[in-house]
Amino acid sequence: MSYLDDIMKSRRDTRHFLNDAVSDSVLEKALQAGHWAPSVGLTNATKYYIIKSGEIKKAIKKLFSEYDEKAANQTENASQKEQYQSLKLEAIEEAPLGMVICYDRSVLNNFTIGTVGSNEAIKFSAVCAAQNIWLSLTEQGYSMGWVSILNYYQFKKILNLPEHIEPLGYFCIGKPATNYDNQPMLQQLHWKQKEEHPFVQEITEIHLDIVEIHHESSVKVLDNKTLQSELQFKIDNKTKPTGALGVLETLALQIGTVFQTLTPKINQPNIVVFAADHGIAVHGVSAYPQDVTRQMVTNFLEEGAAINVFCKQNNIDLSIVNAGVNYDFPPNAKLIDASIDKGTQSFLHGPAMTRSQMELCFEKGSEIVAEIASKGSNCIGFGEMGIGNTSTASVLMSIITGIPIEECVGKGTGVNAEKLKFKSDILRKAIETYSGEDNLEDKLAYFGGFEILQMAGGMLEAFENNMLILVDGFICSVAFLIAYTKNPSIIRNAIFSHQSAEQAHGLLLNYMNAKAVLQLDLRLGEGTGCAIAFPIIQSAVAFLNEMASFDSAGVSNKE
Amino acid sequence: MSYLDDIMKSRRDTRHFLNDAVSDSVLEKALQAGHWAPSVGLTNATKYYIIKSGEIKKAIKKLFSEYDEKAANQTENASQKEQYQSLKLEAIEEAPLGMVICYDRSVLNNFTIGTVGSNEAIKFSAVCAAQNIWLSLTEQGYSMGWVSILNYYQFKKILNLPEHIEPLGYFCIGKPATNYDNQPMLQQLHWKQKEEHPFVQEITEIHLDIVEIHHESSVKVLDNKTLQSELQFKIDNKTKPTGALGVLETLALQIGTVFQTLTPKINQPNIVVFAADHGIAVHGVSAYPQDVTRQMVTNFLEEGAAINVFCKQNNIDLSIVNAGVNYDFPPNAKLIDASIDKGTQSFLHGPAMTRSQMELCFEKGSEIVAEIASKGSNCIGFGEMGIGNTSTASVLMSIITGIPIEECVGKGTGVNAEKLKFKSDILRKAIETYSGEDNLEDKLAYFGGFEILQMAGGMLEAFENNMLILVDGFICSVAFLIAYTKNPSIIRNAIFSHQSAEQAHGLLLNYMNAKAVLQLDLRLGEGTGCAIAFPIIQSAVAFLNEMASFDSAGVSNKE
Repeated sequence: MSYLDDIMKSRRDTRHFLNDAVSDSVLEKALQAGHWAPSVGLTNATKYYIIKSGEIKKAIKKLFSEYDEKAANQTENASQKEQYQSLKLEAIEEAPLGMVICYDRSVLNNFTIGTVGSNEAIKFSAVCAAQNIWLSLTEQGYSMGWVSILNYYQFKKILNLPEHIEPLGYFCIGKPATNYDNQPMLQQLHWKQKEEHPFVQEITEIHLDIVEIHHESSVKVLDNKTLQSELQFKIDNKTKPTGALGVLETLALQIGTVFQTLTPKINQPNIVVFAADHGIAVHGVSAYPQDVTRQMVTNFLEEGAAINVFCKQNNIDLSIVNAGVNYDFPPNAKLIDASIDKGTQSFLHGPAMTRSQMELCFEKGSEIVAEIASKGSNCIGFGEMGIGNTSTASVLMSIITGIPIEECVGKGTGVNAEKLKFKSDILRKAIETYSGEDNLEDKLAYFGGFEILQMAGGMLEAFENNMLILVDGFICSVAFLIAYTKNPSIIRNAIFSHQSAEQAHGLLLNYMNAKAVLQLDLRLGEGTGCAIAFPIIQSAVAFLNEMASFDSAGVSNKE
Repeated sequence: MSYLDDIMKSRRDTRHFLNDAVSDSVLEKALQAGHWAPSVGLTNATKYYIIKSGEIKKAIKKLFSEYDEKAANQTENASQKEQYQSLKLEAIEEAPLGMVICYDRSVLNNFTIGTVGSNEAIKFSAVCAAQNIWLSLTEQGYSMGWVSILNYYQFKKILNLPEHIEPLGYFCIGKPATNYDNQPMLQQLHWKQKEEHPFVQEITEIHLDIVEIHHESSVKVLDNKTLQSELQFKIDNKTKPTGALGVLETLALQIGTVFQTLTPKINQPNIVVFAADHGIAVHGVSAYPQDVTRQMVTNFLEEGAAINVFCKQNNIDLSIVNAGVNYDFPPNAKLIDASIDKGTQSFLHGPAMTRSQMELCFEKGSEIVAEIASKGSNCIGFGEMGIGNTSTASVLMSIITGIPIEECVGKGTGVNAEKLKFKSDILRKAIETYSGEDNLEDKLAYFGGFEILQMAGGMLEAFENNMLILVDGFICSVAFLIAYTKNPSIIRNAIFSHQSAEQAHGLLLNYMNAKAVLQLDLRLGEGTGCAIAFPIIQSAVAFLNEMASFDSAGVSNKE
């Protein structure tokens, strides 16, 4: 053993001191040893505060005692507690000299070499200094005791240390009263045995597989499986627990898959409101007069309706389509004219429209959406306005899904229980009266609504253009049901914005195995559900593109 | 100068090595020196990993290079950058031997002497060992270079270190090729001058402060009846069926009532995320290691977390508060320092915090919110981050509501069924063990968390300032429960943003008769629910202010 080994081996964390004073020269020599310790980036951040005042020592001792008691209460059982309480773990008041070794965090205010990976290097330099001081004191026949059982917040307050000065603990310094039989005190008192040899292990295997950072490709990925698993990987590696963003994660996966990219972006979102009148309204199935359809179209054009407010709030383009309102609108650049007729006929005794009108609906709807897509939009929301259109929608849902009409009927925009029964009866009668061909097309012409069929046509076109399709409430979902019946793949592109308060809407979503983003008890239509849900859809895209990954942020994943 | 002084003085942080191999006996002698260093509580937590593989060294060098470049970009000006880039700061591939000195955090799973004030003592023991090794190598004619410029997350991955093993850095070992003219290399190269003498100061004055808190309500309860009926009239006369905007109408009525106006406006919305560590985490109640708390705080500051993305998206100011994370953050203008202590203690065997710390939490939380209010914000959202804080929240919920702990426990950010049972058992035991006074304050100190109590204090202050209070998920709702227990009127100002997937959250909302705006299956915290729900709250304000009325738009109301 070398001389250095002797010193290192005999260095003790000391809690028993003689009364002999520590001379200035001893202290200076020890502090010089501390000063020879490394200082990361040569920041000189290690600071020493000397305590001689009995009053201060007393106050610090009090802090120790509070935390010592706290520690005693954290022991694992009564006998451990008793053993713990018998240990002397400080000599704050007895040691002739007290020192507080600190590091100055404020050096990090400037560029500091060696702290980019962790700023702890500053602190570690101070600890190296503490060890040097310990060794120097040992060589000089003195010793030190490191007291860490302290409330550091109060400790700093008592010492009036600046905010940026962080203490490593309180250090008791003096001539040792014992050498603890040349072993750590805790071993001498049988608290624990120091292990004979250090733990050493050679690492021979490298683990690079998990370090691979996935580089994002902007090239179209043809194999969806690969893209989806890459998207899922990207989502799972964001700095959050797996699945913790719930519905947003589902949306992000869907949107990335639709747009075939790990970095999707929504461009020029557009909501299209299709308005039309319904012959069935003459039988008093709605709480509002038919004229409200055209009044509301005017309201849309004058930007006073709910959908105007929400589109403006969320930067969504809004298009209004006259699919067949019972009114002659003056020419208006803001109103897309796709009017099939001035409202449908009542389907109570005959078809709502002709077969060619039905076909024209799909055509017109498709044209409108193709035009929007051609201008660069990749996200389209559908909304509707039409007094009486919940009745039309209920019948269409019932004949397509086979769910009894009673379960497909809702209160619409606000009829009472009596009127609901009346509505249900009248619609059942209409369905029973149907004597046409048993095919979808004929039934759509017989029971359809111009705006509903234009929406269905528009959705199919949106799918052809690989757009995200935002579906509003109940009526819009029935339009989607028609498109879905014609092409089930369309569901891949659909986001159901809001589950309306209409009971039938829940049944319909279940039928298509779909779930809506919001449940806000809305029953308005106009595409308001799409507009209100839109920021949440943007949140899904935003987290996928902008959040840090575990790797990039250096955050640990699960244990 | 003594022989020891000579060694300490000539010890260098070395980046230039000869090719000579390091013999086993040299290494063993050095490791023995390390083993003679202190080991807090005799935990033997210091571990040594040896690297000889060129492939591993190469991978580590790559990590260094990435972070070295990052550091270069953090320099303060071009000339500093150039000077920095000319420095040789490692010798990973050249040094014949590599070592990784680590500490084993898992010793904290059992009672450990000396860690009650701060568990950093474990880490400090390992640093003392590093210094001893350095001195021993120096004595033997060898030297060491401490490389801290590393992405530690990747570093651990490459080495396949267990989660609980934390490296201090990579240590290059070998025969030095130069002694840098007997001075630190950074001084030789004129980067900086090592100060001639250490900073030493005697403290003679003692500072004993007493913390006081006061929270008496200054909000006058006005007769709201008239305003409320005027608001309801305004809402009902918008061009939509009565009630058709569902939850948005409820929100509009509430917000108008809180701000005492028919035309409310949200100014400078601000989300505050309070972060702190929890002693209970040492018992393994979370799926993530405690260090994730500080990693996530760093992520918040670097704008990589979910809450950053959503706040940016929705134009919400974001404030991050260190309420008591177990880490020394470098000064950062973006981080509000309200640290009470480096994490609470485990409440399994004793109080999580002292009574005065508990009171300080309320005071600090209140100060932070008062500051935000004074700058003109009238809408504040609360979020949290703290590994283990669902456990703390569950216990607080149980003791305040009387609901059995089993029903208050959830999966947190993702523990499995087995761990859930363990968590539930451990928390029940903690509650049963409690032998303190039967009053809220004592229980809050015993079972509380720094961030949770600061949020509660902040919420009470927000109410005093008549702000809208956006409550995030489960943990934030528990903070609200505390505020609500102290002042039930606060619920008038609260908007519960999101009902989390934690089962207990539903029970808690029911207990307070509250309903959340969103159900998106989120279980993240950070205030993300508030940020995602914010556009919907804005939609409520927007329709109230901007939509046309039946009269103004000339739209017919119901028949």
